[in-house]
Amino acid sequence: MLAPMKLALQNFTIVGAGTIGLSFSALHLARSKTTNVTICDPRPDLADHISNILPTYLPPSFPTVQELLASGRLRTTADLKEACKDADVVQEQGPEQTKWKQEIWAKIEPLVSDKCHLWSSTSGIRSSIQNQLMSQEGRKRHVVVHPFNPPHIMPLIEIVGSPETPEHLLQVPEEYFDRIGHRPVIIKKECTGFVGNRLAFVLFREACKLVADGVCSAKDVDAVIEASVGIRWGIKGPFASYNDGGGAGGLKAFMGNVGLSAKDVWTESWEKKDGGLEGKWEEMIVEQAREAYGTPTKESLVDRNRITMKVIETIREERRAIAEEKLAAAKK
Amino acid sequence: MLAPMKLALQNFTIVGAGTIGLSFSALHLARSKTTNVTICDPRPDLADHISNILPTYLPPSFPTVQELLASGRLRTTADLKEACKDADVVQEQGPEQTKWKQEIWAKIEPLVSDKCHLWSSTSGIRSSIQNQLMSQEGRKRHVVVHPFNPPHIMPLIEIVGSPETPEHLLQVPEEYFDRIGHRPVIIKKECTGFVGNRLAFVLFREACKLVADGVCSAKDVDAVIEASVGIRWGIKGPFASYNDGGGAGGLKAFMGNVGLSAKDVWTESWEKKDGGLEGKWEEMIVEQAREAYGTPTKESLVDRNRITMKVIETIREERRAIAEEKLAAAKK
Repeated sequence: MLAPMKLALQNFTIVGAGTIGLSFSALHLARSKTTNVTICDPRPDLADHISNILPTYLPPSFPTVQELLASGRLRTTADLKEACKDADVVQEQGPEQTKWKQEIWAKIEPLVSDKCHLWSSTSGIRSSIQNQLMSQEGRKRHVVVHPFNPPHIMPLIEIVGSPETPEHLLQVPEEYFDRIGHRPVIIKKECTGFVGNRLAFVLFREACKLVADGVCSAKDVDAVIEASVGIRWGIKGPFASYNDGGGAGGLKAFMGNVGLSAKDVWTESWEKKDGGLEGKWEEMIVEQAREAYGTPTKESLVDRNRITMKVIETIREERRAIAEEKLAAAKK
Repeated sequence: MLAPMKLALQNFTIVGAGTIGLSFSALHLARSKTTNVTICDPRPDLADHISNILPTYLPPSFPTVQELLASGRLRTTADLKEACKDADVVQEQGPEQTKWKQEIWAKIEPLVSDKCHLWSSTSGIRSSIQNQLMSQEGRKRHVVVHPFNPPHIMPLIEIVGSPETPEHLLQVPEEYFDRIGHRPVIIKKECTGFVGNRLAFVLFREACKLVADGVCSAKDVDAVIEASVGIRWGIKGPFASYNDGGGAGGLKAFMGNVGLSAKDVWTESWEKKDGGLEGKWEEMIVEQAREAYGTPTKESLVDRNRITMKVIETIREERRAIAEEKLAAAKK
């Protein structure tokens, strides 16, 4: 059995040298000094491809690809057996095809030690489907470790096991990504789109409907989101924000607001009362928000506003700087 | 008839001195040097209330409330007639109650000149409902100018007229808020929740469902959103982001992705194929995204990533600074 926590993950094998694979390689190399990365891909131009792309993902003044290769921190190979030999983690980001993933995991399993962690960066194929051709023991170790693109920048890591994955094997990527400054979240049950894409796609459907209905253009939808929840939710997610929105009464007061109600929108969009939600859902969310965030205070809103102003200023300043640099370059 | 554009809006009358009213007052005073603000509210402690709250919304080293009152840039009154006398704009943010809004607008209309713009900050009551007790001419001038809280910070202004409002009367707030550095968006048709809240509430329903189903906690939903689309959508909205996501093929390629599909999530959540969307919606969104954003380039993604890294850094640094300040204050 694997040590559940405090495990030193040293040797990462990245299967698939696409955008996500190289972005994860950069993340592992840049954020953890003790990590070695082996990139495995059958593409004939692998070395050139890595030399071209990887440096654009690494921080400025980081060792070059040549230096990383020379020091042994980076290896490349087309041979899966060679790649898996000493791996502490095999992280797969191949094509989003069920058959391909089932077959690669069946190939990988006999090539790795029984201590090796098996992570898939899939955006949508559940662990319980990917692991179908693996042994019973192997299946337990298979975990979805789903990033938000590009993973060397975006902090989110959704960790989703199959029903066979024991809790402590989810805690290993949680601990690792937390340690390197990312934001891992363990999802308790597999579901279509996991959590991030699922929520985003649901909003996106309503956005498509508003465009189709002539309420506003696609560009206007983007402007609305960018200037409101886009900024807000980067600082405080929806439950925290609506808990603030209810004032001293928190989320419970927000849900019971006599004015515009979220439920009015749900009933309209889903054509079912409360958007089809039934049972004790409202007590659950109110209680969880209360436990997580308590009562919003004047001070907490001042802090939120201070961060918000800085974020708005940062976006404006960076946009202005980029535009000025382009103008200066064009004049040359 | 009102001059459609380039109109100097000098005298703003703010009806209702709640959070939104004072936040808008601060915005008008701070961003436009030529604007005067009259705050009208029957509350007996109006002067004290404004002296307490308004300074917290104004920029540092801005004139004090006493100075603003002395210079005539700020006036306060409980008398609606007095407040409306010279108004170029009456901006209402009273209680979110249909009857209240219908009655206040019927009272305001005879008190203002026929050149005065009539804006409501409601978050949910349509202009065509608020304007029911107004004259036919007055109804035309009534416009919803819906902010995102707090409006002195958040850039979004959704401008939504009734079917009777002529286009040029929507362009007046559009021009004004654009000039003072906010982000106005004209919504072409009234709908429940307008656009921003509607989209946010739809995502929030799915979030409640995930919590109710035990997929993750409310706090975990927030973490997922904060670390992914929260940051991304503050920089590029969903259409722009999914246009990027499709690579050289843009939004069309994203929609036709053979892997995880937004439509799979829609079909599941709405229990209807494509979430119930029918007709030419897909051609419309693809065409609008193509027109608005073109093909994503390597350079455009580099720019996006650069802004993203700065935003993530800014949020981290501000959080750290706030925590350190609190720690230092606690030690004193």
